[in-house]
Amino acid sequence: MDNFIAPEQLVASLQWRYATKKFDPSRKIPAPIWKALEDSLVLTPSSFGLQPWKFFIIQDQDLRQQLLPHSWNQTQVVEASHLVVFAIKTAIDTDYADRYLERMAEVQGVAIEDLAGFGNMLKGFITKPPLSLDEWAVRQVYIALGQFMAAAALLGIDTCPMEGFIPHKYDEILGLPAQGYRSVVLCPAGYRDPSDKHASRAKVRFPQSTVIGYLPQ
Amino acid sequence: MDNFIAPEQLVASLQWRYATKKFDPSRKIPAPIWKALEDSLVLTPSSFGLQPWKFFIIQDQDLRQQLLPHSWNQTQVVEASHLVVFAIKTAIDTDYADRYLERMAEVQGVAIEDLAGFGNMLKGFITKPPLSLDEWAVRQVYIALGQFMAAAALLGIDTCPMEGFIPHKYDEILGLPAQGYRSVVLCPAGYRDPSDKHASRAKVRFPQSTVIGYLPQ
Repeated sequence: MDNFIAPEQLVASLQWRYATKKFDPSRKIPAPIWKALEDSLVLTPSSFGLQPWKFFIIQDQDLRQQLLPHSWNQTQVVEASHLVVFAIKTAIDTDYADRYLERMAEVQGVAIEDLAGFGNMLKGFITKPPLSLDEWAVRQVYIALGQFMAAAALLGIDTCPMEGFIPHKYDEILGLPAQGYRSVVLCPAGYRDPSDKHASRAKVRFPQSTVIGYLPQ
Repeated sequence: MDNFIAPEQLVASLQWRYATKKFDPSRKIPAPIWKALEDSLVLTPSSFGLQPWKFFIIQDQDLRQQLLPHSWNQTQVVEASHLVVFAIKTAIDTDYADRYLERMAEVQGVAIEDLAGFGNMLKGFITKPPLSLDEWAVRQVYIALGQFMAAAALLGIDTCPMEGFIPHKYDEILGLPAQGYRSVVLCPAGYRDPSDKHASRAKVRFPQSTVIGYLPQ
């Protein structure tokens, strides 16, 4: 593959993006672009490749209106083209590891027996994790959030990461526990409204020298 | 801005990337590309924009050899062009919020008094956080990891996310606690070695229908 982008283009897109406060409710993301964003979610790297997640996409206005009061009334939830609810899988267990190993055998065309060593490592991690498996899964979901927002910026799609919502209300309204998931973070996606003054404000970042360090000093 | 990329190009780059096991130690990332990757770290979105992090870059071979035994002997740590240690700031307090507000006033050219409402919200969050501030900061760092790996893939740079290392040994060797930081996750970056068989293996992801859900059903 030799079809990479120029460094300037990457940086220009990341500079262009901002946490969109007001989306244009009339503009919908075209299907081919949305498909690429879904692919970016599916392709997100995760620890051991375990993908302890599911991404729920909501376009329905009635459902989004129900979620609004549990989102600190932030209107991005109803005005953006698409609302993505990033959720973790609540039961990460050895059965789940087996399903992943089966998928690996299928995709890579290998015998499941040949994956025994990797499988044992996986199950060792799952049965004696160094941190709570829920928190481990949440961290992986944040990789997906980072990749999704970067991907969107490259495609000219606006986003707004949102931790400000009531997860248990979302879970209840969306019926996530019955499906084995729990909501963690939100990301509306769409197009900025021309009236959103936040778009033209200077991006606030600490100086490069504050957040990048070179070692040894 | 109208210089966005095509959906196919995004997906091709994300398909091209993989968790690189063997880097070509002779190939270094050129300065303009590396600068764009540093920019992608600096520009990472975070909750409230607080940037509770620092990214330590290590190119020195002696230092990396010291880290190798504390990295499950994964050779990416010494063979990649650059090693990035993603760290959280350990003291997130109201002083830190004040430094951020000062930076915001400086960058946006507003009076600090005009940021009082936002400042109160920030300090309210910091003094009564809904989860441990350390874990909150770790989650933000994972956004940076996701954005960094996506950015690298778009630029044709290989990466390998690594949770498999001994953070307290890294912290000790790199002197991070004295600087107010704690290591969380690693990401070597560089160029895949032609002999890395992992590059040609099929990427293992659950089917789209397993990890993407549409609501209401």
